Amino acid sequence: MNEYSIGVDLGGTNLRAAAVGRDGKILQKISVDTDFEGGRDAVIGDIVESVNKLKRDLSSLRLAGVGIGVPGFILLKQGFITNSNNLPYLENYPVRDAIEKLLGTPIILENDANAAALGEKWMGAGQDVDDLVLLTLGTGVGGGIIMGGRVLHGMDGMAAELGHLTIDPFGPPCGCGNLGCLEKLASATAVESTAMLMSLSANPLTSKEVYELAAGGNVKAQAIFAQMGRALGIALANLINTFNFPLYLLSGGMLPAWDLFWPELEANVRMRSFTYRNSKTRIEPATLGGEAGLIGAAYLPFLAADLSLKS
Amino acid sequence: MNEYSIGVDLGGTNLRAAAVGRDGKILQKISVDTDFEGGRDAVIGDIVESVNKLKRDLSSLRLAGVGIGVPGFILLKQGFITNSNNLPYLENYPVRDAIEKLLGTPIILENDANAAALGEKWMGAGQDVDDLVLLTLGTGVGGGIIMGGRVLHGMDGMAAELGHLTIDPFGPPCGCGNLGCLEKLASATAVESTAMLMSLSANPLTSKEVYELAAGGNVKAQAIFAQMGRALGIALANLINTFNFPLYLLSGGMLPAWDLFWPELEANVRMRSFTYRNSKTRIEPATLGGEAGLIGAAYLPFLAADLSLKS
Repeated sequence: MNEYSIGVDLGGTNLRAAAVGRDGKILQKISVDTDFEGGRDAVIGDIVESVNKLKRDLSSLRLAGVGIGVPGFILLKQGFITNSNNLPYLENYPVRDAIEKLLGTPIILENDANAAALGEKWMGAGQDVDDLVLLTLGTGVGGGIIMGGRVLHGMDGMAAELGHLTIDPFGPPCGCGNLGCLEKLASATAVESTAMLMSLSANPLTSKEVYELAAGGNVKAQAIFAQMGRALGIALANLINTFNFPLYLLSGGMLPAWDLFWPELEANVRMRSFTYRNSKTRIEPATLGGEAGLIGAAYLPFLAADLSLKS
Repeated sequence: MNEYSIGVDLGGTNLRAAAVGRDGKILQKISVDTDFEGGRDAVIGDIVESVNKLKRDLSSLRLAGVGIGVPGFILLKQGFITNSNNLPYLENYPVRDAIEKLLGTPIILENDANAAALGEKWMGAGQDVDDLVLLTLGTGVGGGIIMGGRVLHGMDGMAAELGHLTIDPFGPPCGCGNLGCLEKLASATAVESTAMLMSLSANPLTSKEVYELAAGGNVKAQAIFAQMGRALGIALANLINTFNFPLYLLSGGMLPAWDLFWPELEANVRMRSFTYRNSKTRIEPATLGGEAGLIGAAYLPFLAADLSLKS
């Protein structure tokens, strides 16, 4: 009997769930505009309903498990979520146990960027390596580190909080309490707030509008993407000097601006990393787009089964 | 028959070798003022002679193997050393194979800071953890990362080049081609050159003399150690945000200045790492002093044997 797995990606605005085969192919996909305002029970209810719908539709196959990617830190042992900007009502609550009870199936929680990194390793740009770092460039900057084919969690599940690497010790203040975090220099929000500070236009611009200005030759807008590239270059040089991994991936909504930030990024990595200059390190765009997290979440139960077979 | 292992530590000015038991106790130790000016053959000859002397003296025990810690990158597959400031004539030469041939025993090469980190894990401050990062604060700054009880090497053996983390993107120039490397802000050399730039005295001062001035209340000298603390705090915050490991160790000749750099170090880690503020992360002095590298090098053959038994 063929096996499948269910991955759930709990984003800032919607909830997606997919049934995925052992070969990584998506068998069926659901997207729900979740009632995030409705609070904890509404969101958990939507997760349970989506999973149950997929289970009913695929009842001829054996379910290997359910993986759920969520924004925020996952306290792995406890199955808690903490420091989730979008889902405050899921914090400090036994989310995992509550969903398991309602579903009657064991679930695996994972940070969304970690899940995306795992997805890229399984089916995307990282298929040919066992070790990679992923930076997700969206509203914020997230990070995922895959080592030996598995997610690097650290002791509490808080590893790879790469959006809060200090890039400029006296740079722009961050909500985390620090100055000059990567996320304050290389996210969509950073592009938008820098454009505002630079008086690029009378009205607030979206990052896409700033991108279009830069692509059209606006020098101020180009400087914003140069700053983004420099910040990413510093972060990547430090990660390369730390890990000496073969592959570093960038993904997320800012990826279309690649040509605008790449020159400054590459110049900084080259200058700041002897290892980059003397090794076959690759820095590449991720390839799974918005589905990386969904596919990575679905991979979690398969991976857990493989690892328990080994030990 | 009891087993022992031989560790060799090839420093900038001398060569030390020790026979170490399976319990981590040093059975016998040799220190040789190596003829570094004599070139490759002289240094290799000294290594071989030291190992052979220990072998003769301990001929009633079984030799598990020989581990050698050397400054510079180790290209693990090839057994080459590269980018070694002190031992240029050992570069791009099959050092490992040459020594193995002369000794008739397999040897394991390791970067000296990696060996020190492994030594601290085996017999020092890291005995109770499997994951730690070590920063060695000496003439330069070195790094070693232990993960799952083993050295993190990366794809070429160049991981943990933590002295070249970018701390201040427009900071002091470094020989590696970068600006603002940790090593240019937090080593003995950094303390000395900053004291010179700040005109702390008419003549060049040693880092020990700068330390004594700072301990005696000299405000400029204190500012130099505050800068060192800030740089270390930024580096550690980034490493904590990346790894979420339980333990980060500092070692090396600058360790006696701990009280002078710690306040700024801790304030920066606290400000710059949410993970530090919300976990049981420890930042501590290493405990094996100058013997960490020697003990770690001796541990390499034992560890290799343990790992090959497991697989």
